[in-house]
Amino acid sequence: MIIIMKHGASQSEISNVAARVEQMGFQVHLSRGEERTIIGVIGNERPFNREQMERMSGVERTVPVLRPFKLASREFHPHNTVFELGGVTFGGPEVVIMAGPCSVESREQVLETARAVKEAGAKVLRGGAFKPRTSPYSFQGLGEEGLRYMAEAREETGLLVITEVMEPEKVPLVSAYADILQIGARSMQNYALLHAVGESQKPVMLKRGMMSTIEELLMSAEYILSHGNERVLVCERGIRTFEPYTRNTLDVSAIPLLKDLTHLPVIADPSHGTGKWELVAPMAMASVAAGADGLIIEVHPRPEEALSDGAQSLKPRRFKELMTSLSSIAAVVDRVVEGA
Amino acid sequence: MIIIMKHGASQSEISNVAARVEQMGFQVHLSRGEERTIIGVIGNERPFNREQMERMSGVERTVPVLRPFKLASREFHPHNTVFELGGVTFGGPEVVIMAGPCSVESREQVLETARAVKEAGAKVLRGGAFKPRTSPYSFQGLGEEGLRYMAEAREETGLLVITEVMEPEKVPLVSAYADILQIGARSMQNYALLHAVGESQKPVMLKRGMMSTIEELLMSAEYILSHGNERVLVCERGIRTFEPYTRNTLDVSAIPLLKDLTHLPVIADPSHGTGKWELVAPMAMASVAAGADGLIIEVHPRPEEALSDGAQSLKPRRFKELMTSLSSIAAVVDRVVEGA
Amino acid sequence: MIIIMKHGASQSEISNVAARVEQMGFQVHLSRGEERTIIGVIGNERPFNREQMERMSGVERTVPVLRPFKLASREFHPHNTVFELGGVTFGGPEVVIMAGPCSVESREQVLETARAVKEAGAKVLRGGAFKPRTSPYSFQGLGEEGLRYMAEAREETGLLVITEVMEPEKVPLVSAYADILQIGARSMQNYALLHAVGESQKPVMLKRGMMSTIEELLMSAEYILSHGNERVLVCERGIRTFEPYTRNTLDVSAIPLLKDLTHLPVIADPSHGTGKWELVAPMAMASVAAGADGLIIEVHPRPEEALSDGAQSLKPRRFKELMTSLSSIAAVVDRVVEGA
Amino acid sequence: MIIIMKHGASQSEISNVAARVEQMGFQVHLSRGEERTIIGVIGNERPFNREQMERMSGVERTVPVLRPFKLASREFHPHNTVFELGGVTFGGPEVVIMAGPCSVESREQVLETARAVKEAGAKVLRGGAFKPRTSPYSFQGLGEEGLRYMAEAREETGLLVITEVMEPEKVPLVSAYADILQIGARSMQNYALLHAVGESQKPVMLKRGMMSTIEELLMSAEYILSHGNERVLVCERGIRTFEPYTRNTLDVSAIPLLKDLTHLPVIADPSHGTGKWELVAPMAMASVAAGADGLIIEVHPRPEEALSDGAQSLKPRRFKELMTSLSSIAAVVDRVVEGA
Repeated sequence: MIIIMKHGASQSEISNVAARVEQMGFQVHLSRGEERTIIGVIGNERPFNREQMERMSGVERTVPVLRPFKLASREFHPHNTVFELGGVTFGGPEVVIMAGPCSVESREQVLETARAVKEAGAKVLRGGAFKPRTSPYSFQGLGEEGLRYMAEAREETGLLVITEVMEPEKVPLVSAYADILQIGARSMQNYALLHAVGESQKPVMLKRGMMSTIEELLMSAEYILSHGNERVLVCERGIRTFEPYTRNTLDVSAIPLLKDLTHLPVIADPSHGTGKWELVAPMAMASVAAGADGLIIEVHPRPEEALSDGAQSLKPRRFKELMTSLSSIAAVVDRVVEGA
Repeated sequence: MIIIMKHGASQSEISNVAARVEQMGFQVHLSRGEERTIIGVIGNERPFNREQMERMSGVERTVPVLRPFKLASREFHPHNTVFELGGVTFGGPEVVIMAGPCSVESREQVLETARAVKEAGAKVLRGGAFKPRTSPYSFQGLGEEGLRYMAEAREETGLLVITEVMEPEKVPLVSAYADILQIGARSMQNYALLHAVGESQKPVMLKRGMMSTIEELLMSAEYILSHGNERVLVCERGIRTFEPYTRNTLDVSAIPLLKDLTHLPVIADPSHGTGKWELVAPMAMASVAAGADGLIIEVHPRPEEALSDGAQSLKPRRFKELMTSLSSIAAVVDRVVEGA
Repeated sequence: MIIIMKHGASQSEISNVAARVEQMGFQVHLSRGEERTIIGVIGNERPFNREQMERMSGVERTVPVLRPFKLASREFHPHNTVFELGGVTFGGPEVVIMAGPCSVESREQVLETARAVKEAGAKVLRGGAFKPRTSPYSFQGLGEEGLRYMAEAREETGLLVITEVMEPEKVPLVSAYADILQIGARSMQNYALLHAVGESQKPVMLKRGMMSTIEELLMSAEYILSHGNERVLVCERGIRTFEPYTRNTLDVSAIPLLKDLTHLPVIADPSHGTGKWELVAPMAMASVAAGADGLIIEVHPRPEEALSDGAQSLKPRRFKELMTSLSSIAAVVDRVVEGA
Repeated sequence: MIIIMKHGASQSEISNVAARVEQMGFQVHLSRGEERTIIGVIGNERPFNREQMERMSGVERTVPVLRPFKLASREFHPHNTVFELGGVTFGGPEVVIMAGPCSVESREQVLETARAVKEAGAKVLRGGAFKPRTSPYSFQGLGEEGLRYMAEAREETGLLVITEVMEPEKVPLVSAYADILQIGARSMQNYALLHAVGESQKPVMLKRGMMSTIEELLMSAEYILSHGNERVLVCERGIRTFEPYTRNTLDVSAIPLLKDLTHLPVIADPSHGTGKWELVAPMAMASVAAGADGLIIEVHPRPEEALSDGAQSLKPRRFKELMTSLSSIAAVVDRVVEGA
């Protein structure tokens, strides 16, 4: 950490800050410029309380030198995290495609969608049984009934199942049915939930909050990792900007940036990332071109009847066409979309 | 709701959409312009699924006519919500001042701060026992021990106690000690938690998420109200923008806007809203000038030793000076800061 | 346009608004719902002053039905704008690559870069002679001398030349040297400049402002088109968001969205869009996968000596490798990168 | 400046960077931590090209230590800039109120408004003769005719005149009529224009761009100051955020922050800052409570007929009431609103 003193900070202010740093067990490195004195703090600064320093007399601001995440960082873990689940390898050469409806609405809808996406080459079935909805008057999901339909679809198709868990106490229930636990964007900083999935034995896909920086996403991954669960996927799903023509702005550059900063597999969600089905195919292709390790895509047999997110869902036929294009894009970047 | 058809939508596309609207139990009102046909949907549109309509052939977009919140809206509840708690009236002429440390750190720190803010005129003691922290390596709060110190401070000073609850299953525990339950910015869309505090008997202060719209804030209030709890305070605490010189941008205009849209009391948090103690006093005064019904302010006897948020905490002496200024500003807008 | 009246608007308020609309030469279409009355305005609303209506008693808000741009819209001009310039076709099957240094720094630097990018397959040489710089203390460009070097490079290599013009009165001077005039992000709403390039005979590349919506970009294109210049390229170059790890967030979804909304060719700038050279290649590939008609990329023989934007410039060798990848991606989306 | 080397940077990378810094005439200060080496650059870093350094092998990022503005900074110019113009003192104890219509529409409209705002206590008449409009189809202002009406209003009422100039070559014309030149938000980074008004003898009010940081605003002020014009007012007028209920988000905290960072007088614009007349009064009061040196407010005798910005204009009667409230708020912060 670096402490930048105010222009005109007095000698005693500088000494007080330096003394405090040493008292906290760090070494001090002083550097006097023409306009400012700078105090370097040598040591592992991660547990350091920067705010205390910023409140000391004569201090202008502090600048962290180290990234605040460690378990999630590629620096301390240079090799990609690769893991296998039910015959599917995450973080390897395959770009894993997850697809399915936004919400589980009925047994038939789930089975019909599962068969279609399986046939098109998807490896994982997505579908929400517990739905976070802005309005208390909107459909809130089928709950455990929905989980059972998902499990039945897995039975029949061999697809893995990913579904969202929203509360710590529901982790055991959802884990009984799902292969991968999804932490939604609104829950990215629900620390009790991160703690609970960190202690579970299930792989976790952590979505970036629509208001969260890349650093905050990796700090939330750090919570899960620090509770002992190493199988974490991080997912870019669009951030909130001033642009009103799209529901969110899919931050495609977050994909290569995350690949550089972390060893965890990086997934992209072009459905929530845009909110418009017409944009899903180009953004799915862009995401693979930019290096994504997987995609999660909303597919519904009759989007105009979907109980949620119909506007951003692909029909099975179009999803199948997209899989062919994705396979070609993947080849250009030395990756593979299997089964397409 | 209004459905705007695409330029060149066919007659059969228009008929299909109209038929679907009627089938859902709404009346249709058709209007053909030179370039576009518009379909008005007459009836209570709140449970209407706009996305389904947007996915129908020939539809360009839909525009809601009604605000999606009803219980929280002033339209359906024109009179201010006013309630009394331990001798303090919220939503009335008094601008209620809540103050205290960011985190409860020790018994002595809480008692010392409580005495100081009481003496300066505050009516409610704030203090965090369960702390949401971006880093798993930061101080996470004292937990129930912290709640006990808060309760002891209430005993001694007569101040009410407000503190954050982060998990649904902790609602009973926190309710046993606190007078007001705080829902933090990161939890604004934690629906299980909103449900839980909605069913409790305690007043709730709901903070706006750092990247949540005013409409989303009121939708979250609607969750609490719809579960039967009518004593809800909404709190503006700064939104995330591109400006790096402040931690957040306190959206002062949200205060008069909320007063217009909702009957619920509106609180402002100039400490989190700016992140810099130097800005707390001017922004506190600005908030009262703009019509706030209350303020929540961080005060710490020794901010340079605070385990969290030291940079934005006022010392007791400065808080006392601020209370005098607030009292004068309040008088200009026909309000009162008592005890100052 | 739709005028939404307030809940409880009186009959006379409704009549006044309707009368005013008719007086302005529009037809009125009234629709009374349970909670709100809506007044549809039939006719070409583009010159309509919505703000006047919003100020009338009883009006809650207005909603435009038509897009405010007309000349730029695909609706009124369904076919792609395609034009040929010095043997290069813009808006056709070729993805046109423009490359070169941020700033023209010397004759040698420009010639060396021009040869390298030509050899790699670029068709247009970029380079700034007049530089918009945030600081008055930064290098402001070589001015006309720089333009001469660019022209010399064209002479030698056959590349077209694109360069920025920042002032209306400099349009003739820059036009004397350049093949395409660039309007930078900071000038997107410099209306006198848009007017001047609209009246010139030169093609124009209009960059999206870093905090401008897609609609505003197309309105600025409308200015140029309405002054008689039909050869306009629109360029996505990154928008400002809350994310600090990148200089800007390249809005890749703007590419397919613009292709849908306008007939004008769409260019992407992955250099300014990210600010980091490591991200340029993946984002260039993502942009082509998403449907871009061209790219503009910063290339410098010695980025670590560049007088501006060194951090986001590619070296010629890496640019050449990128051209090969771009060619493969283009093939997947039925486009071509020639010469690569 | 501080250069942070990558984790694992080699000794030769460190030496190369250090050598380069010294070669540029700066002193080097090396500090080796456990995980990172840091290179301090001692000397006036303002003309330093950080991007070159960031492009050198082994460098992770650079951090500026000094603020990039100097002439505008309070550090180098501790005393407030105070200047007198036609009997009105800017930057002194008086909070100067400027008021008038968005656009000059007719001789009668300007004179009527001028008389009303003068009578209510305003000192400066605002009004646009050259109007920046998003749409080429909107009213673009009366041009010189509008300037003449403004001058006539000054003659009659004694008010000073402030009006916007949009092009460098119009500076002499506008200066012939106006007392203060306004640089609009869209022109904040129009450097040719900043240069031109910097060389004029007229005071300048520089508005913050809707997408600009406080640092960028002060850098643009630096342009004007560095060209010899010391009479600069900076104006907060609302920034663009994700919130759709207001046109912009008035960043009230920018007022005390600017007062701390710069010696220049700080003006607030609650009309553009909110876009809604109902919010103008509370936000005007909030701005004065937060320390503004002046306000600029839109007033129109018949807002529902205004050719621009009707929705955010106050009627004269309401403006007069507001002046009384402002006077009371000013007294609380030891300022004065004269004539009210």
